[in-house]
Amino acid sequence: MIKLVPLTCSSIPIFMKKPIHILVITLLLFSCKEKGKLIDSNPQENYPDKSEIEKTHHITSLNKENTNGFSIIIHGGAGTILRKNMSSEKEAAYKATLEEAIRVGYNILKNGGSSLDAVQKTINVMEDSPLFNAGKGAVFTNAGTNEHDASIMDGKTLNAGASAGTTIVKNPINLARTVMDRSPHVMLSGNGANSFAKEQGLQIVEPDYFYTEKRYKSLEKIKETETSQLDHDNKVAAFYDEDIKNSKFGTVGCAALDKNGNLAAGTSTGGMTNKRWGRIGDSPIIGAGTYANNNTCAVSSTGWGEYFIRAMVAHDISALMAYKNVSLQEAAKDVIQNKLSNLGGTGGVVAIDKNGNMVAEFNTAGMYRATMNAKGELAIGIYKD
Amino acid sequence: MIKLVPLTCSSIPIFMKKPIHILVITLLLFSCKEKGKLIDSNPQENYPDKSEIEKTHHITSLNKENTNGFSIIIHGGAGTILRKNMSSEKEAAYKATLEEAIRVGYNILKNGGSSLDAVQKTINVMEDSPLFNAGKGAVFTNAGTNEHDASIMDGKTLNAGASAGTTIVKNPINLARTVMDRSPHVMLSGNGANSFAKEQGLQIVEPDYFYTEKRYKSLEKIKETETSQLDHDNKVAAFYDEDIKNSKFGTVGCAALDKNGNLAAGTSTGGMTNKRWGRIGDSPIIGAGTYANNNTCAVSSTGWGEYFIRAMVAHDISALMAYKNVSLQEAAKDVIQNKLSNLGGTGGVVAIDKNGNMVAEFNTAGMYRATMNAKGELAIGIYKD
Repeated sequence: MIKLVPLTCSSIPIFMKKPIHILVITLLLFSCKEKGKLIDSNPQENYPDKSEIEKTHHITSLNKENTNGFSIIIHGGAGTILRKNMSSEKEAAYKATLEEAIRVGYNILKNGGSSLDAVQKTINVMEDSPLFNAGKGAVFTNAGTNEHDASIMDGKTLNAGASAGTTIVKNPINLARTVMDRSPHVMLSGNGANSFAKEQGLQIVEPDYFYTEKRYKSLEKIKETETSQLDHDNKVAAFYDEDIKNSKFGTVGCAALDKNGNLAAGTSTGGMTNKRWGRIGDSPIIGAGTYANNNTCAVSSTGWGEYFIRAMVAHDISALMAYKNVSLQEAAKDVIQNKLSNLGGTGGVVAIDKNGNMVAEFNTAGMYRATMNAKGELAIGIYKD
Repeated sequence: MIKLVPLTCSSIPIFMKKPIHILVITLLLFSCKEKGKLIDSNPQENYPDKSEIEKTHHITSLNKENTNGFSIIIHGGAGTILRKNMSSEKEAAYKATLEEAIRVGYNILKNGGSSLDAVQKTINVMEDSPLFNAGKGAVFTNAGTNEHDASIMDGKTLNAGASAGTTIVKNPINLARTVMDRSPHVMLSGNGANSFAKEQGLQIVEPDYFYTEKRYKSLEKIKETETSQLDHDNKVAAFYDEDIKNSKFGTVGCAALDKNGNLAAGTSTGGMTNKRWGRIGDSPIIGAGTYANNNTCAVSSTGWGEYFIRAMVAHDISALMAYKNVSLQEAAKDVIQNKLSNLGGTGGVVAIDKNGNMVAEFNTAGMYRATMNAKGELAIGIYKD
């Protein structure tokens, strides 16, 4: 019944890779099978019972007894990410950018910086990469434009900032941070949000900065097949084949705990390819795409946004911890593998609790993700195994 | 220690007004003092301990033992609503419109209609009145326009729909319903949402339909004083005096339980007077302004939206019921009088649980509100006493 799980998987605690922890490895391998289930794409078949979940708690408790422990976890989107479809070059490129991003946040935390700064600057690296559906690499709307959503939340104060549908802001997470810090509001949208960004001196780019050939071709492909996408309820066309669904799963996000015990989370996205009517997904919605509360956890979501809003994914994880006194791992598993899956939603979260425990929970074939703990141990994962 | 509470207060169950229930009145007066505290504006001083809360549970249990019981509760905004500032004509006008609105929903429910239809049609009446900050009576933005937000949620399916920043849709709650029923999305915004409304054949009006002299004067007044509104952190100006705060407290909302046991909630608003930068408040945010779940409750919020988003007011009430097994009344009190108040937020909610129990909880001086139960008993309230 014992199955070896590759040690490159982020769901394995990083300290397990160190030879001095051979005994720990031996003991923990007995729980790897359950841990493997945690991130399986079939929630019904593999959803463990409570006793199994409890067995796995300790393996993500990286910092529980650390003084001034800190940790950081990121995602670059979840979806049908299969090893068989991935070239080694592409995989290396994703891993390199995930590592570059998380090391930025790690260094901020190591030097005593705030989790908010770590989240923001880490996300900036992914926003500036064309690989992810955020910032530079954002997908195209039906109108051939790029409309960005982002949000950030401070677990210490419960302050939050968000922006939806901006078109000229180079780094949308910076706008979300500025909305939080420099306006009386939580959420700004559209041209108004663009104007606020200009007034605040954020970096503005021409809309064609966000043009990437790959994303534009995705839009063209979807438009070609659009007429076949009316479902049986005659709802308005959208997003029904696997390839198209994947087009909206490149959201980036980060959750971090700093040396002062403050949690923060942030999320940034271009939304869905071919989106229209000013569609807003979960990424800029506090409680759905992003949530942070020093009493519980910090969460960033990625996936089919409509379901994440309906399930209130990020806040529900926090509420389960606060009111049912369950661990982050149990809460994240329940919300993603049970509640979200039962609604029909797909995607995942990265989250971190007030003790620095980290979890990457998803019900898709893969999720780009990475973790670093206070010891500087790095783990990067893409697939579910 | 026993204090008489006026029987016109909506927090008193309606059957108490009937002479045939003298004995019930006598018994229940013993719990009126605690009930009075429920809606007091000073949460710190008057927040009852758990034993006191429990004493008051039964007095809102209007339908617990009814077969096919149903009920409906509405609000027309919360804020510094004081009897001394209200003319009898104005008070009569508010009460008449609240009654007209709730009777529309009541009749739908009585005839076996859905809670979703009851919520939508009830809100339509308030949207069509110039009295409330929604639809016809919406406040003006900084640009002299009217931008409407709305949301609706179905407790049976957890489907939801929302629209933000529309300018030409006569009844924004109808757009939210149509987003839910006829699009693959939960939330649309701005011109895109306007376009969707047109495509779907919703009633479109010229922007000047939303002009009311009273609201326009409010905008002018605020603009005159705006330069004095930079706070000590040098944040961007907004909304700091009592009069201005009140300008954003006219949101309307409704929660209903139908004969089939399905809960629904909806909210509609013009947002804040003088809002800019495409500000989005809590009204169109599922989990903040609106939430419904057949397993727990249906909630509609009104108040200072930024705080309602940060506190995830509507979803938090549901989560407390689901995970802590507390009553609707306890959950609403905890979130409004404790959590929201501790953040500095002001406003309130109307909510209804799966047994038809209703609660109007607020930490402001008043909230326009009304309830009807399956017996057709109506209660209307404005002030906290």
